[in-house]
Parts: sequence; structure tokens; C-alpha cells
Amino acid sequence: MTTTGAVEGISTDELQLALRNSGMPLEALRWPVTPLGLHYLLIHYDIPAVDVDTWRLELGGRVARPVSLSLGELQQRETVELPVTMECAGNGRARLDPRPVSQPWLGEAIGTAVWTGTPLAALLTEAGMEGAAVEVLFTGLDRGVEGGEPQAYERSLPVAEALDSGAILAWAVNGVPLPPQHGFPLRVVIPGWYGMTNVKWLHRITVLDAPFAGYQQARGYRIRQAEDEDGTPVTRMVPRALMAPPGVPDFMTRRRFTEAGTHRVEGRAWSGWGEIVHVDVSVDGGATWADAELGDAPGRHAWRGWSFYWRAEPGEHVLCCRASDSAGNTQPLEPDWNLGGYCNNAVQRVFVTVS
Amino acid sequence: MTTTGAVEGISTDELQLALRNSGMPLEALRWPVTPLGLHYLLIHYDIPAVDVDTWRLELGGRVARPVSLSLGELQQRETVELPVTMECAGNGRARLDPRPVSQPWLGEAIGTAVWTGTPLAALLTEAGMEGAAVEVLFTGLDRGVEGGEPQAYERSLPVAEALDSGAILAWAVNGVPLPPQHGFPLRVVIPGWYGMTNVKWLHRITVLDAPFAGYQQARGYRIRQAEDEDGTPVTRMVPRALMAPPGVPDFMTRRRFTEAGTHRVEGRAWSGWGEIVHVDVSVDGGATWADAELGDAPGRHAWRGWSFYWRAEPGEHVLCCRASDSAGNTQPLEPDWNLGGYCNNAVQRVFVTVS
Repeated sequence: MTTTGAVEGISTDELQLALRNSGMPLEALRWPVTPLGLHYLLIHYDIPAVDVDTWRLELGGRVARPVSLSLGELQQRETVELPVTMECAGNGRARLDPRPVSQPWLGEAIGTAVWTGTPLAALLTEAGMEGAAVEVLFTGLDRGVEGGEPQAYERSLPVAEALDSGAILAWAVNGVPLPPQHGFPLRVVIPGWYGMTNVKWLHRITVLDAPFAGYQQARGYRIRQAEDEDGTPVTRMVPRALMAPPGVPDFMTRRRFTEAGTHRVEGRAWSGWGEIVHVDVSVDGGATWADAELGDAPGRHAWRGWSFYWRAEPGEHVLCCRASDSAGNTQPLEPDWNLGGYCNNAVQRVFVTVS
Repeated sequence: MTTTGAVEGISTDELQLALRNSGMPLEALRWPVTPLGLHYLLIHYDIPAVDVDTWRLELGGRVARPVSLSLGELQQRETVELPVTMECAGNGRARLDPRPVSQPWLGEAIGTAVWTGTPLAALLTEAGMEGAAVEVLFTGLDRGVEGGEPQAYERSLPVAEALDSGAILAWAVNGVPLPPQHGFPLRVVIPGWYGMTNVKWLHRITVLDAPFAGYQQARGYRIRQAEDEDGTPVTRMVPRALMAPPGVPDFMTRRRFTEAGTHRVEGRAWSGWGEIVHVDVSVDGGATWADAELGDAPGRHAWRGWSFYWRAEPGEHVLCCRASDSAGNTQPLEPDWNLGGYCNNAVQRVFVTVS
């Protein structure tokens, strides 16, 4: 592991992105459900202005019975509440070396919200997907240019995931109508998947008989080492544990300061591949590890609390935490580099001065 | 004016700050009152966890009758709703050259909210300020280290401003209880002043018989050219106009793309020194200027809308806007540099490609 985690030479383009996309300050890990306004936000283009009186959700493509619904009509359907932990696929990107140039997340691109909506699978079943269906495409109202291509933001899911992942079409978050930045009036929420799949400002669902080859699927969000590789798609969240940094921060460096004694260090951990079964903590920069105590999760698809008693002695310390899931995945100590800077779940390092 | 607005070599410290403090994406200028979750946030230390059942506001110091109030007791008092435009004093800091190292705002550290609370002046009058009173100090529950000094965040106001500025003690924003990041359970809101004076997580008000000499007053938030100068304090917001960038963005560069034709360009303008009396717009990078049409403000202390019809022709364009207030202040074309990077209200420049 590097000793400082230093990141240098952030460019204008990266800074512009960092200032309009917001991370969750890590002290907000204290809340099992992230308060509105603290959940991370990654917005590719502009937040669109949507007139809900003329807005409709159109479901078409390879279906027997195309559907067109107003928001009021959608809200008449079966309604569920789903606590979901969501993370940006680029979380940790700025820790990679060389650093892929895009939104330069250090590790704060997370949040857990309770989404209210209607099951996607039921709507697809009612519309009657044809036998030729292979993917379901979600199209948002947000438009821009990316990689030289003008586009609306859109992403697809394999049919099996659309039916079996527990995905919902959500119109509310934490008990209030979706605010503009979370996709008003409707977004899709797919438990366990990275954020890019949870299309916001959703207005069209299209059942496809061939894999979607648009920008966000074929060029963006693929794990590859070079531009000329096809690579593999980014899908579900790999496991990660984060701690709420103990003590108090220095304004400028964010180094932490606390006093000697026993401190209860708390955090949360999640994975899109299975349950969190183990979190361990190091208070010596990763040289030795000890088990954290696991706590509750606000839901099956949400992060699980954990805690650890740290007997802090005067001096400089580096605290780390590491999660493992029921599918056998464990966080690495060092990042796996890839061209787009996706899925970097190398363990968190928190620098603390104890006096 | 520089031709590109390029900012280079942002450091780890600056990036960490940019990722935890959030700007308002400028397309949100379309709303007269900023939706919750889009208002800018500058949080010096950690967001504190506050137990409202044990929390009390204590008002003491040079007063005849010290006051201690629960939130419920405060909410029994006279209640007002106040639409206020608030801006970080460091807005535009990253555009200065050399760049002062702190939160590297480019221009998005703004927002307008409707705050609900009780007038500060009435509470001070009831407590009976002594004749020796010169300043009123506001102390928050947020703690950290800054400039090597452990501290709680605190800032003072001259007595005359505390009584006459229309300041309130606010427990709600946009109709909901303050969320943690806006200062739950109570903050002070002082119309017209930069954000640093609007102390969040307020728990103590102290009437002082001498000017407060704490870090945030004596070292931070002063306009000076060198460390050994006393400088002058940062107080009210200097005028600024911002436009919602026309067209659609490129994801990475945020350059704007639109089509030839007549576009209605919209924005908002504000000043802490007086009413906005004039906004003018340039579509040629500041070479020539024309009047914008002024619109409404959501309140006396909030930004005023403006609009401009732009006949866009194919090619590369730089759009600028410039506000003037009733106190005779006008935005400069080039920034005035100072050590802390405060009050940079040089005109906005938006780069647009018309096809």
C-alpha cells in the first residue's frame, strides 16, 4: 500500500466534475439510512427539467402489449419500499495510478436510501416479453455529449436480471417524492448493481432482441486494460467496508485527531454479490488484522453495520477495514487497475494522530 | 480575461474538500428556490450528531437575563419564513492565480432556500444586552483543527448587524426540519452575509464586550495580501450574476453544445449590499455587452431572475453576464486577488459550440 494516498495534478475537467457531483461525507456512515442531501450523486449531463403533467413512462419494443402510464397510474400499482445501498462504479478511481481521468472519487461515492416504487418484473410480465427478448433498455431524459457522441443517458440489463434482481421503478426516496437530482419523476433501482444501471429521469423502457451497443454499455463501464479491448461489463458492486473516521478532522488535510483511550470505531459494509459475512480491522496500516463485530442492515440489499474497539495509544496510526461476502469475495489491499477506473475496492486507510 | 479558465495541479487536500463540500450544479439556477439537496454545502469539520432531546440553545455573556431554550420552546416564539440567497465567501477561489489552497470552488457555491425560524433581534432584546455589548458570538457544535488550532466553529457579528440585518434562528428549510448538513437542529441565517457567518449546529450565543478574536474571525475570512497584514473582514456578498449554461454539456469538459437559432438564456443575480438594478450579457467573451431583462426575486434577500435572447450563430462562443447593485457595485471582468481567495466575483464565462 502507498503510505500517503496522495493524488496529484487534478485537472480542470476533473475539478469541474468533483464540484458538481457530490460525495457522502464519511461521518454520515453513522446513519443506517443516509439523510436526504447526503447520498452521493453522479450526474453525467444536466439535471433535466421534467413537466410531470405531460411526462409518461413508455414501455415498448419486443413486447406483446406496449404500455404507456402517467405517474398517477404507476402509483396505483403494487407499491414496495426497498432500502438499497448504491455506489458509483468509479468510487476510488482517483486512488489508481496512473489515474483514469473522469469523476475523481476517492471513496465517498456511496449512500443508502429507502426507495418507494413498483416492481419492474410485474410490469414486464404484464406487457408480455416476446421469446426473442434478451435485454431491457432504460432511457433517461438527460442529454449530453460523451466520447464525442451526442446521446441520452441509457443503459440495459439482461432479461434475467430485469426479472429476478428485485428491481423497482421508484418515485419516492426516504418518504418524499424524488427530488430533481435523484431522477424526478421516476428512476429504476436495481439492488446490488453499481449506480450507472439505476437510470434516472426514466421515460422509456425498451425490450430488445439483441444486446444494447450504446455508449454507456459498449464503451463506458467496461473493465479493460486498453482502448482496443472489448473487456467485461461492470455489473454488481464488489464488497467494501468504510469506517466513519474517528476523532475530529483538520480542515485542510482531513487528518484525524483524537485522544488516547478506547474508542468504538464504527462503519458499514456491503456487497452486490452476497451477504457481508466478515469485516476485519487493522490499526497498524494493514500489518495485522482483527475481527470487527457485525451489526444490523436496514434491509437485505443495504449495508451492514460493524464496530470495533480500538485501544488508541499516543502516536501516528493508520486504520484500515476490509469486508468479505458470502460469495467468497474479499477486498484487496492494493487496487486492481483498469482503464476506466471502475470497481476499485482496495481497503480504506484513515490517518489518525492520537495525543 | 484568461481564454480558457484552466485550473491546474489541484492537490489531494483540495480534492478531498471538493468531494465532501458540494456545489450547486448551475442548471439548478432554473429554480427560484433551490431544491433540497442541491444548495451548496461548506462544512469545515464533521457534521455533528446532535441529540435534540438534550440539546438547548444557551444565550449568555453581557446580558441582563441569560436564556436557555429547548427546540420546542424556540418554536413557540414568533415564526417567520425568509427566502435567502447564500454564497460561500470562497466562491470562485480556484479561478485566482496563484490559487489560494482551500476548498477550490469554481463558481457553484450558491443556493437559495426558504428558512423558517424566529427573529434573533427579539431574543437579544428580551435577554437585555448590556451597554458594553459590541458583538454577538455564535458557537456551533462542530469541532476540528484549523491553522493548527483545535476549535469549535464560531463567528461573531457586530451588535448593530445582529439587531438590524433581519437575522433569524432557523430550524427548518424549504418546509422541512433542518437536515443534518444544514445545521440540525438550529442555525443562524443572516440575510446578505456570506455563508461563514450563518453558523450551523448552533448551541450557544454569547454577547461580548470586545471583538471576538477567534480563528474564523482573526485569521480566516479576512481580505489581505500577505499573512502579516491584519486586512479587512469578509462581510456581505458582493454582486454576482450566473447563467444556467445553455444547450447540453460534454460529460468530461462541460463545454456546451447547442444549435443555431434564438435561445432564451436565463440566470439569477444577487448582492448583499443592495438590490440588483442591472444585469448585462456579452456573447463575445466580454468585448460588447447588452442589457438583460430583469425578472422577479423570491424575496427581498434572494436572487433576482434575468433573461436574455441570444441569436446563436454557428461557431465557438463565450457567454458572460455581469450584475450591478443599487449600492453602486458592479462585477469586475478580472478577479481581485487576495490571500484567502475570498469574494472573487469576476464575471462567469460559459463556452458554447453552436452547430
